[in-house]
Amino acid sequence: MKLNQFAIQPTSFQQEFTELQRINFIQADFLNQKPAPALQWLLQKSFPELTTSQDQLHQLSTLMATSKQNALGYLQQGQVTATAFYNIFWQLLGFEAGQDFSLDDPLALGSQVHYPIFSQSNLDTKDLIHGWYQLLITHTVHGQTFLDELANRGYFQKMIQDPHTPRPLIFNGKAQPVYDTSKLIHEVVYVESSLDSDHDGQRDLLKTEIIRPQESNQQPVPALYTASPYNQGTNDKDGEALTHNVNVLLQAKSPSPNTVHSAPVKEAQIPQPRSIKGNSPKASASMGNYFSYSLNDYFLARGFAVVYAAGIGTKDSQGFRTCGDNQETASTTAIIEWLAGQRTAFSDQTQQLSITASWCNHQIAMTGRSYLGTLAIAAATTGVAGLKTIIAEAAISSWYDYYRENGLVVAPQGFPGEDADVLAMETFSRKKQAGDYHKIASTWQQHLQKIAQDQDRSTGNYNDFWEQRNYRHHLQKIKADIFLVHGLNDWNVKPKNAYKFWQALQKLPVISKLILHQGPHIYINNFRSLDFTDIINLWLTHELYDIDNQAQKILPKVIIQDNATAETWKTQNTWGDAHNQSQVFYFNENSLQKKPAPQDLAPQSYCDYLPADKFNYYTKNLNQWQQDLTQSNSDLATTRLLFKAAPQQKPLIIDGRPKVKLRIASDHPYGLLSCRLIDYGFFRRLEKLPQVLENQAFDLSWHYQKENLREYQLATDPTSFQLISLAHLNFQNRTGLTQVTTVVPGKFYDLTLLLQPTHYQLLPGHQLGLIIYATDMEMTIRGNQNISYQLDCAHSKFLVPLMS
Amino acid sequence: MKLNQFAIQPTSFQQEFTELQRINFIQADFLNQKPAPALQWLLQKSFPELTTSQDQLHQLSTLMATSKQNALGYLQQGQVTATAFYNIFWQLLGFEAGQDFSLDDPLALGSQVHYPIFSQSNLDTKDLIHGWYQLLITHTVHGQTFLDELANRGYFQKMIQDPHTPRPLIFNGKAQPVYDTSKLIHEVVYVESSLDSDHDGQRDLLKTEIIRPQESNQQPVPALYTASPYNQGTNDKDGEALTHNVNVLLQAKSPSPNTVHSAPVKEAQIPQPRSIKGNSPKASASMGNYFSYSLNDYFLARGFAVVYAAGIGTKDSQGFRTCGDNQETASTTAIIEWLAGQRTAFSDQTQQLSITASWCNHQIAMTGRSYLGTLAIAAATTGVAGLKTIIAEAAISSWYDYYRENGLVVAPQGFPGEDADVLAMETFSRKKQAGDYHKIASTWQQHLQKIAQDQDRSTGNYNDFWEQRNYRHHLQKIKADIFLVHGLNDWNVKPKNAYKFWQALQKLPVISKLILHQGPHIYINNFRSLDFTDIINLWLTHELYDIDNQAQKILPKVIIQDNATAETWKTQNTWGDAHNQSQVFYFNENSLQKKPAPQDLAPQSYCDYLPADKFNYYTKNLNQWQQDLTQSNSDLATTRLLFKAAPQQKPLIIDGRPKVKLRIASDHPYGLLSCRLIDYGFFRRLEKLPQVLENQAFDLSWHYQKENLREYQLATDPTSFQLISLAHLNFQNRTGLTQVTTVVPGKFYDLTLLLQPTHYQLLPGHQLGLIIYATDMEMTIRGNQNISYQLDCAHSKFLVPLMS
Repeated sequence: MKLNQFAIQPTSFQQEFTELQRINFIQADFLNQKPAPALQWLLQKSFPELTTSQDQLHQLSTLMATSKQNALGYLQQGQVTATAFYNIFWQLLGFEAGQDFSLDDPLALGSQVHYPIFSQSNLDTKDLIHGWYQLLITHTVHGQTFLDELANRGYFQKMIQDPHTPRPLIFNGKAQPVYDTSKLIHEVVYVESSLDSDHDGQRDLLKTEIIRPQESNQQPVPALYTASPYNQGTNDKDGEALTHNVNVLLQAKSPSPNTVHSAPVKEAQIPQPRSIKGNSPKASASMGNYFSYSLNDYFLARGFAVVYAAGIGTKDSQGFRTCGDNQETASTTAIIEWLAGQRTAFSDQTQQLSITASWCNHQIAMTGRSYLGTLAIAAATTGVAGLKTIIAEAAISSWYDYYRENGLVVAPQGFPGEDADVLAMETFSRKKQAGDYHKIASTWQQHLQKIAQDQDRSTGNYNDFWEQRNYRHHLQKIKADIFLVHGLNDWNVKPKNAYKFWQALQKLPVISKLILHQGPHIYINNFRSLDFTDIINLWLTHELYDIDNQAQKILPKVIIQDNATAETWKTQNTWGDAHNQSQVFYFNENSLQKKPAPQDLAPQSYCDYLPADKFNYYTKNLNQWQQDLTQSNSDLATTRLLFKAAPQQKPLIIDGRPKVKLRIASDHPYGLLSCRLIDYGFFRRLEKLPQVLENQAFDLSWHYQKENLREYQLATDPTSFQLISLAHLNFQNRTGLTQVTTVVPGKFYDLTLLLQPTHYQLLPGHQLGLIIYATDMEMTIRGNQNISYQLDCAHSKFLVPLMS
Repeated sequence: MKLNQFAIQPTSFQQEFTELQRINFIQADFLNQKPAPALQWLLQKSFPELTTSQDQLHQLSTLMATSKQNALGYLQQGQVTATAFYNIFWQLLGFEAGQDFSLDDPLALGSQVHYPIFSQSNLDTKDLIHGWYQLLITHTVHGQTFLDELANRGYFQKMIQDPHTPRPLIFNGKAQPVYDTSKLIHEVVYVESSLDSDHDGQRDLLKTEIIRPQESNQQPVPALYTASPYNQGTNDKDGEALTHNVNVLLQAKSPSPNTVHSAPVKEAQIPQPRSIKGNSPKASASMGNYFSYSLNDYFLARGFAVVYAAGIGTKDSQGFRTCGDNQETASTTAIIEWLAGQRTAFSDQTQQLSITASWCNHQIAMTGRSYLGTLAIAAATTGVAGLKTIIAEAAISSWYDYYRENGLVVAPQGFPGEDADVLAMETFSRKKQAGDYHKIASTWQQHLQKIAQDQDRSTGNYNDFWEQRNYRHHLQKIKADIFLVHGLNDWNVKPKNAYKFWQALQKLPVISKLILHQGPHIYINNFRSLDFTDIINLWLTHELYDIDNQAQKILPKVIIQDNATAETWKTQNTWGDAHNQSQVFYFNENSLQKKPAPQDLAPQSYCDYLPADKFNYYTKNLNQWQQDLTQSNSDLATTRLLFKAAPQQKPLIIDGRPKVKLRIASDHPYGLLSCRLIDYGFFRRLEKLPQVLENQAFDLSWHYQKENLREYQLATDPTSFQLISLAHLNFQNRTGLTQVTTVVPGKFYDLTLLLQPTHYQLLPGHQLGLIIYATDMEMTIRGNQNISYQLDCAHSKFLVPLMS
């Protein structure tokens, strides 16, 4: 079991001594104590659920100090050895003597866990203070720091009741849970945006749900804001009905030197703001169950408010869903402007009584995954005042990179046929209120058809619609520090979204951090092997409370979960460094070689067509398709070329975007190219999803909400391959994303295709494999056309960026 | 979507009128209102999260009353039609106009949901009162009653703060959430048992965790008590190390006329109680995270306390785990005795200050699944005072029926090699405290070895050890009413445990109820299609608050989830009625026939042996083994006989225990028989596990804990078979469970084997299949011996009990 911690603030003894007093763990005269009574005191304080000294001492007898003596007996003899200290240290962290470590050699466990290092064998009281401080900031086997665990057992209950407790209460640079989660305030306000996206002549009101500690009435707190278009419900059946057929033909596109016309967006006439008919000291509405992200919940006890808004076109708000345009962004930032004191909100939907976020210190962060993280990126690219940072997980940075690729319609994995119009419909939860929808149904249908037309599934071109949904075009406005999290196996929001945004950020005067994990499209805040919650606590305590905790220096620039070993997280300063050298592989018959093939090697061909029954079967059995595509002999063998490199002799670490340069021809006036990079080898790999280690074991504060504790384990059974990266391209877009050119049947063209960025460790014994094919059953349109392709291997190559 | 409700109390208008006043929904003069203002009032009260009338009226405008008019506009015109009422009714329950129902014909939806029936087309105020009462008790699409949903949105918040609110507050026979879950009291006491199971000369103290509403300080409340040996942690690695090898040889057993000797259990000398050194008005210890069953959590807001205890041998308690014997039962009932005022508990582990459960009204129920439910059955069979009822889910009623079957070692599915000793070790969480374990390690190891010896894996015989762990031998003592819940696909705790207990209960003067679902070993309290939580509320409000709510009459005797259609629950008065007629099937070559085969049909043979590589493969791929066992041609074809009946013409409902009567021979002086009854046919069946419909959507009270909403759906893909039932028998136990007789190689014996009880609907087009084999890779020992069996089909038959 490895408990990796990246959010530990280095401390001097003086800081440790001061902070232990700050949380009432010790008194100012503690150094006067002899080691044994000092240790007894520290131990007794470590059972906050027990109020009698007798009961606490009894617990001391349940801990072994040496292989012969329990801690209670041990304390009678006066001295405290480092061995006894370590034994107690591990037991308090939940390790089991005799099973996880030996009482005679406790340090054998140490390499996997943070712990204080003592060179002396006998400890004095100063050592004990240092040791206990380090204990409190170390993770237990249940995935949180020991201090968090004490808090969850009631440690801070007295301080929570005490008005003199310093708030926020900082320990090791992180905010501690001294806000009362049993007295949270739940309220709803309606922010007036400067939008009229449903063209009803009124500015769109936006429902905003707030959960905040009551202590924020006395002292303003920062806000964690999550914009989730899903959180007022989704129209699943309507979305399904609108989902596009992907079994359609690839067709020739008209040549065009530039598919983006940049016609000026017609600025809509915005109605006047509503008149303000008075002020309301408090919100008139509350709410019941609400969408909740457990990372946000964790911060409520720590002195942060949490704000949710679903935005234009959602239930109890006004306006229309626009899926990624500047109106949606403005609907997202309107909430921030209100939190920062720069915009009007009303206390209910009708009375026009304004209400201020007087409980907010005007320092705001955005959080969330997928569409939620996307809106955080959208907001950050406006430079809106008050937004200090975003933590964007698995977020889209350009919608073209979500629904399209290189001139092709390319679906997020798992959602073939989804598109901007489908998502707009899916999230248009105003429809759930029949009385509301009745008024706007026909305008909405027109609006939806406009999206369907503008997104242009017929060509897959990068056009004005997508240009307006590319947040990376507004990078210069970014003022917020940026924290990105992305899964290296996320084929829904593909890694390119994070990579391109990240690369561009490095040129901006803001701080940026990145975590890359091995998951697909998931949250990672409840993993045991990574102190993600602490990392975000350190980050937000700095960003939103302006505490000088060195967060920007302490936190690594990039943290990457290793794909080859469990519970392993590495750090580096870049991702896809421009200085990375590429290893060049040349194509030969069925193989990737270090040397070029003979120039006269005949082209190899493959044909995209499958018999109808097989085609139908694969469209419904995508896992089997994936499996068969990678196997040497399968029903798909004639539809693709597969090139394997020799088994790897030493570890190969790929970092960045692999690049394929092909000389290729289609026998039609159009063609599509798909590539998959595969790790071949029969090995035990990480499981595809993290498993629950302990149900509901991850407390978000004392008797408040809970999370499951999860972890990626090595799968019990070996598998024969793993997808590393992929890419797709329309032959007609070979010269540039915004250029459409002609394809002459039979003519060879030189194509360059950048694969999705990755960071991947290929272990010895494994083989790199590259598959060249056309229709991607999971992602592209599926015409099942009789198109034959020829690859001139002698003039093709494959470049793999290696860690420098 | 079907929302089945069984816990609705039939009501008179007068009761509805009174109860609506009781929950402050209407005032006494409400009947004086005209229909339109009356409906407006009722609607406004249905938005408890909104405090301004303006905001509430705005919400009325979001509901459609007719296909043309929203509810706000509609109210202006005076009259209220039944159609408008139904339209509003469905919308408030979460159905979507235009999608789930038509505003012009709302009643088309009605068959799937509870609703009031109006014969008149215009409603008066009295009708509206009736209609709204019925609305409040009807389930929404989110799996709870509309009143629960209002409560979760804050409806009862004022009444919770009001000391004059009647408590418990009963509505439609069920307790309502008017206890404040933000002020729950968490405390720990230590009950002194009359046991010294670890032989340390001291009575075993038992840690008891209590969560209770603070209102219980003023007015005592009932207690829901869950005994969970797992809840202080488990020794997974130790359990794994102790797990027995199941790849061992079947051997001949010594003949014996009776394997039970009923030697009197030596009563251990019980030490004197500890002296009581004073009283403590309150517990000195609290706790942090604790094991929590969401059904229990739901009742905290409704005026019930929740109590958890892990029992002897668990962390922070004393004594040893004994896995099912009378000491464990006494450790379970000790907690009840304390709750009922009949036993001493101390406020901490050392000071001997007694503490009473003054907050408890001495009315106790036990809840829980698996081992937890088992201990509820154990406690019920003592007749302990104060225990009014148990809700035992997937519970063991005799440990022999868990770890053995008919003279064979037979494992619970998923746990080959587990046994009583393994479970004792697994749950012996005292070992987690090294200092505690250090004192008792060697005594514990002796104790564990004694269990290993007494459980006698070498023979699988029903002996004294198992006799002492058969709760069904103490049925006459039962005083509590019994509520059983069991999965018809539970191959862990097999259905026989519930069935035999249930059959015996019918002869006792207590009330019993039974729910049979299609799950394996799971909880069912968060299904959308069944009002399980309401059922238990009605039941417990009657049992523990003595409210005359007719629960015993209203709740069906037996509720059974249908296996063939989704969301369908049927009721009946019995399970496996003695009056059920059996359909007889005769064996022929590969088939089951309605007429006997010719008497001279040659016996058919099969051999248990598999080549080593196949054997090893199947031991590690149990799903594949299951699959191959049922297929006509597979590697297992020589190891079993498969008999199929003709495709069913009309539905066949099996209810009870199918019975196999075989004339069979082994070529060794021993033999083992396994049978599986299979439903063959390529159909869409229910999924094996319920799927999450909505994450965290099932609120347990206002801003308190949450559950996922789940449901069984028909699987997208058809499957070719489903297991209906199974059984196993040692040839040497053919004459009786407690008799071991000789087997002469080659000699034919007449064997009768009762399969696990079931209730199964075989649809037209499906075929019954019976598989006769020896080694059950999932459950029996696996000797892979070259034993050949011969079945005399002409003298064998199969009896299927059909619904009478």
